[in-house]
Amino acid sequence: MTLTTRTVAAPVVPSSSTLTPLGLDEVTITGGFWGERQTVNGSRTLPHIEHWLEREGWLGNFDLAARGGLPEGRRGREFSDSEIYKYLEAVAWEIGRVGGDSALEKRFRSVVDRVAAAQEPDGYLNTRFGRPGQESRWSQLEWGHELYCLGHLFQAAVARERTSPGSDDGLLAVATRSADLVCEVFSDSGIRSICGHPEVEVGLAELGRVTGTQRYLDQAALFVERRGHGTLQDHEWGRSYFQDDVPVRDADVLRGHAVRANYLAAGAMDVAVETGDTGLHDALARQWDRTVARRTYVTGGQGSHHQDEAFGEDWELPSDRAYSETCAGIASIMFSWRMLLSDNDARYADLIERTLFNVVATSPSAEGTAFFYANTLHQRTPGEASADDEISPRASSSLRAPWFEVSCCPPNVSRTFASLAAYVATVTDRGIQIHQFAPATISTILPGGGAIALEMTTHYPRDGVISVRVVDAPAEPVTLSLRVPKWADSATVSFRPASGTNEDSDVGPGYAAVEKTFAAGDVVELSLPVQPRVIHPDPRIDAIRGTVAIERGPEVFCLESVDLTDSLGDDADVLSQIELDLSVDPRETPEGIAVALRSMPVGGPGDGRSSTATLVPYHSWAERGPSVMRVWMPVADHSN
Amino acid sequence: MTLTTRTVAAPVVPSSSTLTPLGLDEVTITGGFWGERQTVNGSRTLPHIEHWLEREGWLGNFDLAARGGLPEGRRGREFSDSEIYKYLEAVAWEIGRVGGDSALEKRFRSVVDRVAAAQEPDGYLNTRFGRPGQESRWSQLEWGHELYCLGHLFQAAVARERTSPGSDDGLLAVATRSADLVCEVFSDSGIRSICGHPEVEVGLAELGRVTGTQRYLDQAALFVERRGHGTLQDHEWGRSYFQDDVPVRDADVLRGHAVRANYLAAGAMDVAVETGDTGLHDALARQWDRTVARRTYVTGGQGSHHQDEAFGEDWELPSDRAYSETCAGIASIMFSWRMLLSDNDARYADLIERTLFNVVATSPSAEGTAFFYANTLHQRTPGEASADDEISPRASSSLRAPWFEVSCCPPNVSRTFASLAAYVATVTDRGIQIHQFAPATISTILPGGGAIALEMTTHYPRDGVISVRVVDAPAEPVTLSLRVPKWADSATVSFRPASGTNEDSDVGPGYAAVEKTFAAGDVVELSLPVQPRVIHPDPRIDAIRGTVAIERGPEVFCLESVDLTDSLGDDADVLSQIELDLSVDPRETPEGIAVALRSMPVGGPGDGRSSTATLVPYHSWAERGPSVMRVWMPVADHSN
Repeated sequence: MTLTTRTVAAPVVPSSSTLTPLGLDEVTITGGFWGERQTVNGSRTLPHIEHWLEREGWLGNFDLAARGGLPEGRRGREFSDSEIYKYLEAVAWEIGRVGGDSALEKRFRSVVDRVAAAQEPDGYLNTRFGRPGQESRWSQLEWGHELYCLGHLFQAAVARERTSPGSDDGLLAVATRSADLVCEVFSDSGIRSICGHPEVEVGLAELGRVTGTQRYLDQAALFVERRGHGTLQDHEWGRSYFQDDVPVRDADVLRGHAVRANYLAAGAMDVAVETGDTGLHDALARQWDRTVARRTYVTGGQGSHHQDEAFGEDWELPSDRAYSETCAGIASIMFSWRMLLSDNDARYADLIERTLFNVVATSPSAEGTAFFYANTLHQRTPGEASADDEISPRASSSLRAPWFEVSCCPPNVSRTFASLAAYVATVTDRGIQIHQFAPATISTILPGGGAIALEMTTHYPRDGVISVRVVDAPAEPVTLSLRVPKWADSATVSFRPASGTNEDSDVGPGYAAVEKTFAAGDVVELSLPVQPRVIHPDPRIDAIRGTVAIERGPEVFCLESVDLTDSLGDDADVLSQIELDLSVDPRETPEGIAVALRSMPVGGPGDGRSSTATLVPYHSWAERGPSVMRVWMPVADHSN
Repeated sequence: MTLTTRTVAAPVVPSSSTLTPLGLDEVTITGGFWGERQTVNGSRTLPHIEHWLEREGWLGNFDLAARGGLPEGRRGREFSDSEIYKYLEAVAWEIGRVGGDSALEKRFRSVVDRVAAAQEPDGYLNTRFGRPGQESRWSQLEWGHELYCLGHLFQAAVARERTSPGSDDGLLAVATRSADLVCEVFSDSGIRSICGHPEVEVGLAELGRVTGTQRYLDQAALFVERRGHGTLQDHEWGRSYFQDDVPVRDADVLRGHAVRANYLAAGAMDVAVETGDTGLHDALARQWDRTVARRTYVTGGQGSHHQDEAFGEDWELPSDRAYSETCAGIASIMFSWRMLLSDNDARYADLIERTLFNVVATSPSAEGTAFFYANTLHQRTPGEASADDEISPRASSSLRAPWFEVSCCPPNVSRTFASLAAYVATVTDRGIQIHQFAPATISTILPGGGAIALEMTTHYPRDGVISVRVVDAPAEPVTLSLRVPKWADSATVSFRPASGTNEDSDVGPGYAAVEKTFAAGDVVELSLPVQPRVIHPDPRIDAIRGTVAIERGPEVFCLESVDLTDSLGDDADVLSQIELDLSVDPRETPEGIAVALRSMPVGGPGDGRSSTATLVPYHSWAERGPSVMRVWMPVADHSN
């Protein structure tokens, strides 16, 4: 088959798929929950990241490489090059998002020049391997991350080429030189192995798509097929850590390191789509289902183990030891988005929304300059604040930290926020689908012909009304589909034409489709029941038996100790001793959701004392100093 | 003060204490549950350990050191020397236990010779540091384990001197040379630091006691006092990992690495006793209380984190991720035993019993040649068997393994079993206390004068009758005290004199004291209610809310999938889907404890199906091939 190279300013552009993605030049988030985060990302987070990349010397490693100063002066972990590439990707999307920014453009080019200067004549690019005094190239496939780093380089080059096609900065040439080397070295007549950290697969697939190079996609397919046959060395955590235990097409569930597992699944889905491999597609869909049913937190977070940053077994979802790495959430969105483009099933967009609001939005502080690496669902002790100017040695701090020894999460959040508009809507021949809700403008040419322009206004998730006004539409019928989340058990969709009769109908979860010959001024309005909901866990999850969580719209709420109206017993231990009293309905207030509590019967003087508290959205926790917090709350037994 | 040097063939011999320990020449376990394990330990485990120490080259490291073959040929981790010392300690106790064994004596001396040959002229002894090409001595206090290894050397020398006083094998001289060096190097005018792994404190204290050297005890006290002031370098898991976050006398609870925490507490208790430091004693008693109430599994196991082998926060006790390292159980016994000798409080002996039956006895296989390193309370997947002849890279396997890369547990279990008789009974001036129940003979001279000899017969824990027959007794009144465990809510003690009238009385938990002028042939019989008991967890422990466990006497029982009478739904997942039906009382059978189950309402065809199963003692699980297992079982809600 031949790769088509349609230029869409979006991270994932399959040659063909059920849903066609839209680019950052076609969709703009204009405000609201996500718009604010995009603004902070551009104004605060990007400079913050560049500052730390310089300060820690990870960017300087490229300069040292260029002038022969390695290995002596090298700083950072073996994968630090990748943070520069993720940063470049974020900047590329940001330039695309704002429609050009000369200062940002200058910074981008300056970093690209430093990276390019470190590339060796044959295309090899890594500051950690291959020089005299360093371990030799490709000698540490399990832990060396060389291919992983290149995967991120490829994604950066793809972002740049899609947002600034034909730019003369040279990044695409750097990427293709490295990709050509990878294809040569890792062909079936070369090193028949894989990288300990999947990522090069998605990078090669998209680089293949953007440049029309079938060879890159073939190499991605080779990497996907090679995995799962015990190629990599066994170790304490087992080969499942890098998904080298079972071939992708034979596996039933995601397992091992949660970021690795999702990056691999995303890359495998790219391969399945480009090769029309339904067996591979079905295996991935099956893995997605079981992973979401049995190995995913209510927040959308994935990864139950701190030790190996890995999935646990089925039903192993401890709140207090939830690792739920920010990057695993982002990786899960990458996987789900590819499934959504292929299958047009709302459950994929539902999980993306859940993960965006409750994992990705949780990581950065409101200022955009401190981050959660792990996202626990139950913080038992207040913990210590990280100093603003100190690197955090701890991935699982109870407060956000400005930077980490392993600092994958900040640039990963940044590239996701900068490219977020690409996840809002898709098109089909004669249809347009809205998957995520935010104030936004959408303007594109439908694949089946005809310009369409929409304006979405909403205060979502604060309330549930999403109003889509038609600005321009073809003269023929078009189907406008709006996602109705699974939790929306009483949604309605209304068609309010500029002239004519309003039509209202109740809609169930999935996509509410309105097929009309639209005219400018027509409005389609979706009303979702954004009210407090009590969530009961699956009885097979031991860690949260006898508890409930409270959700409202797409947001999971939490009880934070600073929001207790009065003390219920031992202060340091207060959230271990409370129960939710469900004889009083959770009630919405301007501050959050008011609930009734009482203290547990633990043989203390305060047993059974009643109180109240206000729950706040989980993504906003830990913004008011050290505190304890829990998402799942024990339920009082009324027979006592 | 002056150290007295009473020679008692026991691991812990304070200069003075409320209870006086007895030695292996005074107490002999003659059979039963523990007698069988001691026999297997001597005949199978000790040769197994020596085989692996040779095979892995950890013993050979000493030969290399002696002939200048280091560092090139060195094998094993930085603490591998300590396994040889633990092995020597185990052999010393075993020789003492069996009253001499010429073959074992020869093996012991041969290993001592190889160790002694590696000692440097100034007393330094470690195969990992200090030679050209190695890191320099004491340069890696956080992770180097040099002092830790010496602590185990000291304990081995103490065991030898107490069981074979004045032996000419040379081990005691090796130990004192090293101890002298430690006192010189780590004095307050030397390196004012500590070892990342506490252990040298208990070693120095006991070496001081056995040799009458106050300086060793003073050095132990220095090490205890220095800890907790942030002396060691911070790292990802924080300084609490090696208890360097809070001074021992200020801490409220054990925290960080569970073995380290308990070894430190044991050493600190030695210091508190020898210096009469009631503040330190009280701090340790407080820490013990909160640790047992909030951070200890129903098995007595400690340590909730795999990542850092550490305690979790209060109430953080996941069953499926229970680490409960075997060595942490042993270390906890070391701490509790010292508290018991000081305070004569049955709760310490209760925890020792719980930990012996449910952690230490769980680790080795029935054959004594494979071990659990970690002791989970909930095994979710069957896992893989370790090959008999392969080292296990995984500490948390679902089946026992013959050896580990970090193989502290096998020799630690071995030295504990070999010295177990020392934990059975103690004496006071005119009293004798029986803390643990086993068929045994006890023969000693009371500190207040007068010979006493007892014979204990029992099938405990199979049944609850413990019969103590007087073989010899002084002509004056003596108080015979028998521990009544906390769980025994309907115990009786009977005095059945050789001539005269029987006396029976109900006794509550604590010590049942019978004061008599005993005559040969008199019998004191304790009857404990050894029947199935349903245990409800503290409501603050999230991980086991809505579950119960079943105990019988000192044994915790478990549900193992091989004991299900029929399948209840999806086989691979069966133990995630069952609930215990407590409308049917757990019932004792010859095979174990029969219980009624039903399958959970999870929306499957088998919902609510009833079945039965037989629970088996937790320590016997995983002896019948790979299986899944759980200790805490969800309870069916009868309102459904």
